[in-house]
Amino acid sequence: MEPKNRLNQDQTHVNETIARVRRRPSKLKDTHVTLAHGAGGKASAALVEHVFFNAYGNDLLGQAGDSAVIGLNELVSAGDAPGAQIAFSSDGYVVNPIEFPGGNIGELAINGTVNDLAVAGAIPQFISASFILEEGLEIETLRRIVTSMHQAADKAGVRIATGDTKVVPKGAGDKIYITTSGIGIIPQARNLGFEHVEKGNKIIVSGHIADHGMAVMMARGDLAINAPIESDTREVATLVDALVTAVPNTRWMRDATRGGLATVMNELAENTGLGVALEDEAIPVRPMTRAACDMLGIDPLYVANEGTFCAVVPAEDAERAVAALRAAGAENPRVIGRIVSQPAAAVVLITGFGGTRMVDKLVGDPLPRIC
Amino acid sequence: MEPKNRLNQDQTHVNETIARVRRRPSKLKDTHVTLAHGAGGKASAALVEHVFFNAYGNDLLGQAGDSAVIGLNELVSAGDAPGAQIAFSSDGYVVNPIEFPGGNIGELAINGTVNDLAVAGAIPQFISASFILEEGLEIETLRRIVTSMHQAADKAGVRIATGDTKVVPKGAGDKIYITTSGIGIIPQARNLGFEHVEKGNKIIVSGHIADHGMAVMMARGDLAINAPIESDTREVATLVDALVTAVPNTRWMRDATRGGLATVMNELAENTGLGVALEDEAIPVRPMTRAACDMLGIDPLYVANEGTFCAVVPAEDAERAVAALRAAGAENPRVIGRIVSQPAAAVVLITGFGGTRMVDKLVGDPLPRIC
Repeated sequence: MEPKNRLNQDQTHVNETIARVRRRPSKLKDTHVTLAHGAGGKASAALVEHVFFNAYGNDLLGQAGDSAVIGLNELVSAGDAPGAQIAFSSDGYVVNPIEFPGGNIGELAINGTVNDLAVAGAIPQFISASFILEEGLEIETLRRIVTSMHQAADKAGVRIATGDTKVVPKGAGDKIYITTSGIGIIPQARNLGFEHVEKGNKIIVSGHIADHGMAVMMARGDLAINAPIESDTREVATLVDALVTAVPNTRWMRDATRGGLATVMNELAENTGLGVALEDEAIPVRPMTRAACDMLGIDPLYVANEGTFCAVVPAEDAERAVAALRAAGAENPRVIGRIVSQPAAAVVLITGFGGTRMVDKLVGDPLPRIC
Repeated sequence: MEPKNRLNQDQTHVNETIARVRRRPSKLKDTHVTLAHGAGGKASAALVEHVFFNAYGNDLLGQAGDSAVIGLNELVSAGDAPGAQIAFSSDGYVVNPIEFPGGNIGELAINGTVNDLAVAGAIPQFISASFILEEGLEIETLRRIVTSMHQAADKAGVRIATGDTKVVPKGAGDKIYITTSGIGIIPQARNLGFEHVEKGNKIIVSGHIADHGMAVMMARGDLAINAPIESDTREVATLVDALVTAVPNTRWMRDATRGGLATVMNELAENTGLGVALEDEAIPVRPMTRAACDMLGIDPLYVANEGTFCAVVPAEDAERAVAALRAAGAENPRVIGRIVSQPAAAVVLITGFGGTRMVDKLVGDPLPRIC
């Protein structure tokens, strides 16, 4: 059935109502998040406009649809297109507390996805940010977190292109959870991957390990000790770029997040079938972080990092790789070990006393909700 | 400092340990999700292997990195590349209950993002799925949801390319939240957008409205009434494809999810500056759904849909559009209104009695956690 033109019949009434309804400016008078902010109506629009748009303010978000539309020519030039690849990554962030020395959940959510793309050899380009807010969250807190995300995105050279906000009732969440996804371009085929790792290659770490996890533990304030440890959260895309420029023959990279360096090294060993031999004394751990780990009986090898990555490079390129990372701003890049044939598919730590011990994957969860 | 070859010193001990550690098959004996499943270690690996990989089992996930790597030539042929665009979308799903007549949160999470891409004119291609699980969730429930996601992805012709799992302690979530992001290709410039909408264009809806929201309400079981209403969750990519093939001159599309048809129509009016005149009697609502809405005092125009979209087409193409949708499997596609110059930037409903009433945006949240 087609609508007929009945509009004129009641035009006076309509016009009166319009004056009240039309383009009513959305306001954000609320100080705390309510369920209405997640309902898709006026309150949602006000939250998006006053908190998210204000901070992001880019033309992709301004499209106001549910999808960002990106010209392929913005991503890659026509000449590069045939060999180019897209990297696509997603991570949820549930860290507790949401603000901690050195960063907050928003910064983490941007850097984490930027870093996942970067270690895949991609130049990070676009990020989506989906929020699950708990009813009662302070708008000011949300604003701080969103501002950090904006700054982190600017620093990493990515654009927050699209997003979503849901609100769950008090007690069905914990202040704020953020899931980010990212798209990056791998401009030309880079030979990165487990299959390129060979016996004799060297293993490099971009900086101190275990700072992020210990900073979050300390920030919870429920431990008997306290130490001024800051999270290492940062984007590593610029470091990765410096590394692959200096050493195009880089074989493999990975950021050492959940499960720490030990877990990432185990994945390397399992997936290559080769052995990973780490030199205990070469692995950089800040004295304060090591002391805190010791006191709590936690092995720093298993503690999460958020701005530290590992790479495998040919032995002859190792020192050049370290120098390139240092020149690009990495604080303490080091050669920490090498790829061996035996023990196959396992990780071994060579201790300062000349002994060795196996380094297994993380079992259980000594540090829940660290990222 | 370089690691030295000290491995042979303690090779016997090492070999003994290896036998114990190496390639120990991961098992999933747990019946419920624990914090360890989110820690990135062995339990996480077992969950991914036995629940997620088993269901998805595609070669992109098999890459086992944190990013999926997609050849640009998989997305778009070299000839199309210069004019092609990428659509990028993200949505969080927090629906309660997580299973309801007609679907579950997993199916919803796939279809929702597929549909956001489709109504942007894109052919949906790759999806990421990030899970926030509450400690204590039954593994069997998770398995059911993941299986549904797999089936929904197959149906929509998309690949689940990458993902993430976090676990939060009991009481810091509500069983399961899923955030999906998607990438689609807009093969050639389609003239879709608010700026292409003109006075006289017709508004089409692809099917019955308000089923999803009412199905979820009923499934909560805390109402005095009960009615056998099923969610309309489905992918609309095939419907959209049929529509734009039949009517290449389609002006605008949007799925009518949160906030329902009323909210989407208000966005159309606000962003075009034109009026939207809807014919009340033309809007398809199932009798059972309408009865449930009436009893609860809820206006079906504001109730969320998960498999229903609206489109604006030139008046002369409207009947062809409806026929194409019906032929492609849409259950009750209808012309429901038209674009008018007055009331400008507002939505008006023309009732069966020849009266009109303004249809404002949703205020507040009568139906929290509907998607």
